[in-house]
Amino acid sequence: MNRLTLIKVGGKVVENQDSLNALLDQFVRISGNKILVHGGGRTATDIAGKLGIETEMVDGRRITGESMLDVVTMVYGGLVNKKIVAGLQARGCNAIGLSGADLNLISAKKRPVKEIDYGFVGDIVDVNSRELRMLIEENVVPVVAPLTHDERGQLLNTNADTIAAELAAELADYFNVYLFYCFEKKGVLRDQNDDNSIIHELDTALYREYQQNGVINAGMIPKLDNGFRAKRIGVKEVLITNPENMANGRGTRLVL
Amino acid sequence: MNRLTLIKVGGKVVENQDSLNALLDQFVRISGNKILVHGGGRTATDIAGKLGIETEMVDGRRITGESMLDVVTMVYGGLVNKKIVAGLQARGCNAIGLSGADLNLISAKKRPVKEIDYGFVGDIVDVNSRELRMLIEENVVPVVAPLTHDERGQLLNTNADTIAAELAAELADYFNVYLFYCFEKKGVLRDQNDDNSIIHELDTALYREYQQNGVINAGMIPKLDNGFRAKRIGVKEVLITNPENMANGRGTRLVL
Repeated sequence: MNRLTLIKVGGKVVENQDSLNALLDQFVRISGNKILVHGGGRTATDIAGKLGIETEMVDGRRITGESMLDVVTMVYGGLVNKKIVAGLQARGCNAIGLSGADLNLISAKKRPVKEIDYGFVGDIVDVNSRELRMLIEENVVPVVAPLTHDERGQLLNTNADTIAAELAAELADYFNVYLFYCFEKKGVLRDQNDDNSIIHELDTALYREYQQNGVINAGMIPKLDNGFRAKRIGVKEVLITNPENMANGRGTRLVL
Repeated sequence: MNRLTLIKVGGKVVENQDSLNALLDQFVRISGNKILVHGGGRTATDIAGKLGIETEMVDGRRITGESMLDVVTMVYGGLVNKKIVAGLQARGCNAIGLSGADLNLISAKKRPVKEIDYGFVGDIVDVNSRELRMLIEENVVPVVAPLTHDERGQLLNTNADTIAAELAAELADYFNVYLFYCFEKKGVLRDQNDDNSIIHELDTALYREYQQNGVINAGMIPKLDNGFRAKRIGVKEVLITNPENMANGRGTRLVL
């Protein structure tokens, strides 16, 4: 099977032109087939604010009312996605922007209302990679925005970390998938105040221990849960890293 | 050669949920390969207004400063495009949204500043249909937003009528292309006050005559110029019509 590198980038990395350029410079250095999954929450919050729409987050998850859904559709599917695509094309990388609605790539269902009504937030039901794989075989590089659809015409806001893990798991049947979660830090840190205290290898026992004693904080948990899940499903390697170390594979490696 | 129907929809048709639904219902009735090219100017003007960005038009063309470029990238590439894609998927039509940057589909150069500085507006340089044709062969339906790029990372705002004509001309080498310009009226009218005064067939001599005596008004001229150009380059049929008559082929037919 061929190697496929799936990079999730989020947060500050994609929302500032300089750090985005640095990321794209690193991304094009990765050889072989690749996919980029991006976030864009800060820009969405910013645009929403300018439009007079209040951003409400619960446990780091965005409450997505009707007008907020329009904002994330514009920002993730339009502004952030197309800037990345144009930036990759400028670097000779034949990118294509996709949401989960395009090619029916990712179908989801609206999250049921329990204690919290998240609004138009989608939990993934299925990944259909047929046409995606066809594009990859043609050396096209998919750039995926964190939006899904319910197959009945409704777009839904879906967490980019989860999209990356689900895409990786689906593609593990066809490729040796390397899943990299890329953020501002060099990896998962043993000490939040020491950027060099990288945990080079994290297994499930150590992960549990670090969760219990608070070494690993709340923000990292969904990313790591997604990563371990992908690893269990057959993803070859899961790495938590930053853009500078993406191409050389340094960071925190998940092991089962 | 197979038949390919390329529909350009614009104006009011795509910017109201009811008329968009009606359009998509008609669109999926068209058999064979097809492409949808859309506008979205009114929504862009609306969102720009809410963001405090003033819309300035010269001869129906939008002056596209840096912040207006972000607005059209969000609205055309994100909001309008993804709503159409999700709506088509709901109707069993395997749509994919594309800008001119995706797959390097349409490269353009920033319009030179003469009397007027249009800002980030692109004049088309080249259409690269390789991957687009591959998708069409797989029965995927491209939905194209009126954005291009300069291959150096700059997105550009490009007229949707022109994009439709250039795509049609490029694809005429591979398909029997039927290009339909779809708007609110049933066709080109002999009398603007009589919606039934449709000119069923318009040749270049008659077009010139109607332009001279003012029967055809300024707004229609770029559309018709684009249409006649596509027809000369080898597009099988060019029709000016409305969504209701799209599937049955009624309207104003251009003949050379």
